[in-house]
Amino acid sequence: MPRIAYVQGRYRRHAEAAVPIEDRGYQFADGVYEVVTIQNGHLVDEAGHLDRLERSLSELAIAAPMSRRALGLVMRELIRRNGVREGMLYLQITRGTAPRDFKFPARAEPTLVMTVRRADLKATDKMARGVAVITIPDIRWKRRDIKSISLLPQVLGKQKAAEAGAFEAWQVDEDGYVTEGCSSNAWIVTRDGVIVTRDLSTRILAGITRGSLVRLIGDLGYRLEERPFSVEEAYAAREAFLTSATTYAMPITRIDDRSVGNGHPGDIAAALRRAYEGYAEGAGAS
Amino acid sequence: MPRIAYVQGRYRRHAEAAVPIEDRGYQFADGVYEVVTIQNGHLVDEAGHLDRLERSLSELAIAAPMSRRALGLVMRELIRRNGVREGMLYLQITRGTAPRDFKFPARAEPTLVMTVRRADLKATDKMARGVAVITIPDIRWKRRDIKSISLLPQVLGKQKAAEAGAFEAWQVDEDGYVTEGCSSNAWIVTRDGVIVTRDLSTRILAGITRGSLVRLIGDLGYRLEERPFSVEEAYAAREAFLTSATTYAMPITRIDDRSVGNGHPGDIAAALRRAYEGYAEGAGAS
Repeated sequence: MPRIAYVQGRYRRHAEAAVPIEDRGYQFADGVYEVVTIQNGHLVDEAGHLDRLERSLSELAIAAPMSRRALGLVMRELIRRNGVREGMLYLQITRGTAPRDFKFPARAEPTLVMTVRRADLKATDKMARGVAVITIPDIRWKRRDIKSISLLPQVLGKQKAAEAGAFEAWQVDEDGYVTEGCSSNAWIVTRDGVIVTRDLSTRILAGITRGSLVRLIGDLGYRLEERPFSVEEAYAAREAFLTSATTYAMPITRIDDRSVGNGHPGDIAAALRRAYEGYAEGAGAS
Repeated sequence: MPRIAYVQGRYRRHAEAAVPIEDRGYQFADGVYEVVTIQNGHLVDEAGHLDRLERSLSELAIAAPMSRRALGLVMRELIRRNGVREGMLYLQITRGTAPRDFKFPARAEPTLVMTVRRADLKATDKMARGVAVITIPDIRWKRRDIKSISLLPQVLGKQKAAEAGAFEAWQVDEDGYVTEGCSSNAWIVTRDGVIVTRDLSTRILAGITRGSLVRLIGDLGYRLEERPFSVEEAYAAREAFLTSATTYAMPITRIDDRSVGNGHPGDIAAALRRAYEGYAEGAGAS
């Protein structure tokens, strides 16, 4: 079965799928995206992702390329054509194609590109061992609440992490507080057993998995504080983990050159991951 | 004569020129660009633009797609094929096409895209009347010295300017100092006749036209200070202007709701523009 992508109304072989050189996504990073997990052939947290997509579009004054219902149909059709049961769906919308000029074009149809790929979301090895993160200065622009394709700082951060043998880089603001990872939200568990993650603002992206986990934490009765935490607080934490659509809740066993807690994945992170897996496979995967 | 673009080794009709959907320029803004003026069929400040291009690539660890000499040949061939005597050449290099993953791909050939278009660089009307600028907060990332295609903040700024009936938006840092325009450098002339433009650092792009003008200012014997200037200082200035490859030196007669000086293009800006035009048409256009 050849891999199929959706580009502007057409289903194309992935390897041949292309966009015009004057698509504003290519020249200006003038677009937004979402990554949605596919579990048992279903889209996990679909409503949350589409809500955020609509908000990102609205913040940039990009028109929706089709109705939410039509978008849902295309997503399902693309998953079906690719025969994917477990993996991820990538969806990108740009302001469209127009002669190069910074300001919004008077006439341009937004471009919709969608791809699907298989992936092992259980990631059993990483789960069992935990992952390492490094900390780096947060050099991004000030509207991180918009899930834009203007991702160059995150590319550089992830590359730094890879070169250091780490899975992710936690970005740190000018006051020494962790904002978030380059493609994930950042969490710690204090010595007192309180789960801490940064509060929502323009300084971080409102992770959809983050939001679902906040609800699960409430259901499970853990204590949660949504507030900034410093790198020092993270070093001293009992546990640390990260969340994203494709990693769920992933335990962190190393931050820079320090072991987190006893150096093994923490109990609360493991419990939250199990809870999220159940949620993703069950009713949440509507 | 149909408009021709250069894409990855091939000359294509502009309207049909395309790049793969997984080109990292499209998904991550992982690339750089240059805009070079064409005057009398020649490239203005070619060496300066290619020096900066090489620096941008080096800062992002993107390989050059071909030698500088080969790039020069492609640029000339594209200008020839389009029969353009006056206009601009746009050149974009991305890290290449690879399955979507933030960190640098192990194997990817950089993508080179080049276009040419006709433009009236004399812009006599705007020159005679001057243009308006607005001031906006500078919300960009911290590596503005790299000429990357991660341009979403500049898109939003230029759009704000257009909605306000202005030509450009001057971005203002957290201390109240102007950094630069969204696609141009910012200059004022004080009541004492001193020309002021921001000093080079990671906070602004090292404009090629800016650099040439700094040399011309020295030749002409004007006094120049390279330092930050505040919005208040700009409001009180005798003259203001902006520089870029496509606008040369353009007089500013309005900043926000204030007239600059007597509300007409200033004498020094006009003199500098004439000097730059002579330079662009003459030996400088090597």
